Amino acid sequence: MKILLTNDDGIYSKGIYALYEELVKIAEVIVVAPITEQSAVGHAITISDPLRIYEVTRRNRFFGYGVKGTPADCVKLAFDDILTTKPDLVVSGINHGANLSSNVIYSGTVSAATEGAMLGVTSFAISLASVEYDDFSVAAKFGSFFAKYLYGNKEINHLLFNVNVPPLKREEIKGWKYTVQGKTRYLDTFEKRVDPRGNTYFWLTGEKIIDDNGENSDDKAVKNGYISVTPLKYDLTDYSFFKEIDKEELKWEE
Amino acid sequence: MKILLTNDDGIYSKGIYALYEELVKIAEVIVVAPITEQSAVGHAITISDPLRIYEVTRRNRFFGYGVKGTPADCVKLAFDDILTTKPDLVVSGINHGANLSSNVIYSGTVSAATEGAMLGVTSFAISLASVEYDDFSVAAKFGSFFAKYLYGNKEINHLLFNVNVPPLKREEIKGWKYTVQGKTRYLDTFEKRVDPRGNTYFWLTGEKIIDDNGENSDDKAVKNGYISVTPLKYDLTDYSFFKEIDKEELKWEE
Repeated sequence: MKILLTNDDGIYSKGIYALYEELVKIAEVIVVAPITEQSAVGHAITISDPLRIYEVTRRNRFFGYGVKGTPADCVKLAFDDILTTKPDLVVSGINHGANLSSNVIYSGTVSAATEGAMLGVTSFAISLASVEYDDFSVAAKFGSFFAKYLYGNKEINHLLFNVNVPPLKREEIKGWKYTVQGKTRYLDTFEKRVDPRGNTYFWLTGEKIIDDNGENSDDKAVKNGYISVTPLKYDLTDYSFFKEIDKEELKWEE
Repeated sequence: MKILLTNDDGIYSKGIYALYEELVKIAEVIVVAPITEQSAVGHAITISDPLRIYEVTRRNRFFGYGVKGTPADCVKLAFDDILTTKPDLVVSGINHGANLSSNVIYSGTVSAATEGAMLGVTSFAISLASVEYDDFSVAAKFGSFFAKYLYGNKEINHLLFNVNVPPLKREEIKGWKYTVQGKTRYLDTFEKRVDPRGNTYFWLTGEKIIDDNGENSDDKAVKNGYISVTPLKYDLTDYSFFKEIDKEELKWEE
C-alpha cells in the first residue's frame, strides 16, 4: 500500500508525525505537507504565488516534502510533481482539534482529503477532537487501522471520509461508527480592540451553540465516546430542491 | 429589502460596483467586502490575525466597508459588528470568472454566500462566467432580478444558490435554469521554474478536462447560453453511502 500523507497543521506538527509512525508499519508513506500551519484555510489553492518544495528532516532523517502552500496545494503538487505513481490512499492529519458539523467546511484537513478524492483516490481526513488533549497515539492507531480497512475492503467503493477521534484512552473508546455531518453551529463573536495608533481591529472569538444533537451526528458520536466516520462528497448540489420547483416558471422578464 | 453585498475580487473591483448600482435601485445595500482580491481562498476564515475594517469611497462617495480578510470573514463581521439588523439577503459577486462544477469548492464567492446561509439568511453567489469578457451589466441586471425573485417568492424556502451568467449580450441569453453542480474537473499541471538563486518553484497552471456534459449541469447550461442557478447545501454528508453499509461490521480490533 502506498499512502500520501498530508495535513494542515504543518509538516513539523506532532499529529502528522504520530500518524506517520503508525502508517510506515503498514505502507510506503510519502509525506507532502505545508511548511507552516494552515488552519481554517478551507479549500484554498494558491494561484497568485509560486509554490516551493523543501526537503524536511525530522529526528535526524528525511521525513518528507514541505510546501509553502495550502493542504490542497500539497495534494495537487504531490500528484503532479512528487509521486511517481498514484497512491492507494490519501490521508490528511492528524489535525489537532475537531473537524465536526459546520466546521467541516472551513477545514484545511478535510480539503486535502477532498482533493485526493477529486483526483480519484480513496481519501480520509483524521482529527483529534480536542485542542487541549495532545496524546495522538490512539488517533494514530485508528488511522492506521482505517487505512488498512479501506485498502482491504474495496467493496466499500466510497472515496471520501472525515474521521474524528475523541480525546480518550484506547480502553475508554466505545468503538467507531458512520455518522452524518451534524447541524451544530458556532455563534461568531468578534472582540473589538483599539491598537496603539487608535485604529480599531477585531479578533474572531467564538461560542459554540448546539443546534443539533441528532442520534447519528458526528458531534454526538464523539461526545459519546465513539470515533466518528462521516462519508462525504464534494457535490454541493441540494438535489432535494428539484422536487419542489416548477420548471415552467423560469422566465427572466424585466 | 436590505441586502448585504460582498465578493471575493475585492471591494474595488468592477463586478461588485456594477451589481451595487443595480441593487440600490431596489434595496438598501450594505457593502462589506475584502480590501484585496481573495480568489481561490475557498471557505477560509481568519483566526490568527486580527481583522480590520476600513471605510471605502468610490466615485467620491461612501461605498462600503473594506475588510482585510476573506469573504467569509466579511459576512461574519458584517453580521456581528456592522449590520444593526439581519439583512433579507446576502449577495456575493459579481465574480470575474466562472464558479462552475468542481471549482465551486474553491470559490471564495460561493463561500461568502454559504456563510450567509449558515447564518440563516437567503444567499446567492453570482459570477460572470468568463475572465476575458468584462461587461458586467447583464449579470448585474440578472442579480437584481434574482434578488427580487427570491424576496418575492418566500415559498422557494431555500437558502443557498450559485448563479453563473454566460458572457453574452442580453438578447443572446436564452433564459435561466436550475442546474446541478457538474462533474467537469480540471487537470492540474504545474510549471516548474528555477529562480535566480537556483531554487525550484512551481506555478499552478491548469487544463480543463471534460468529464461531464450532463444535460442539467451548470457548465452545460452556461455553454448553451443559459444563466445557471444551482441550489447548494453545506451538509457534505453523502447520504447515499448509508444504504450500502452493514452496521454490524464496525469493530476496531487490532
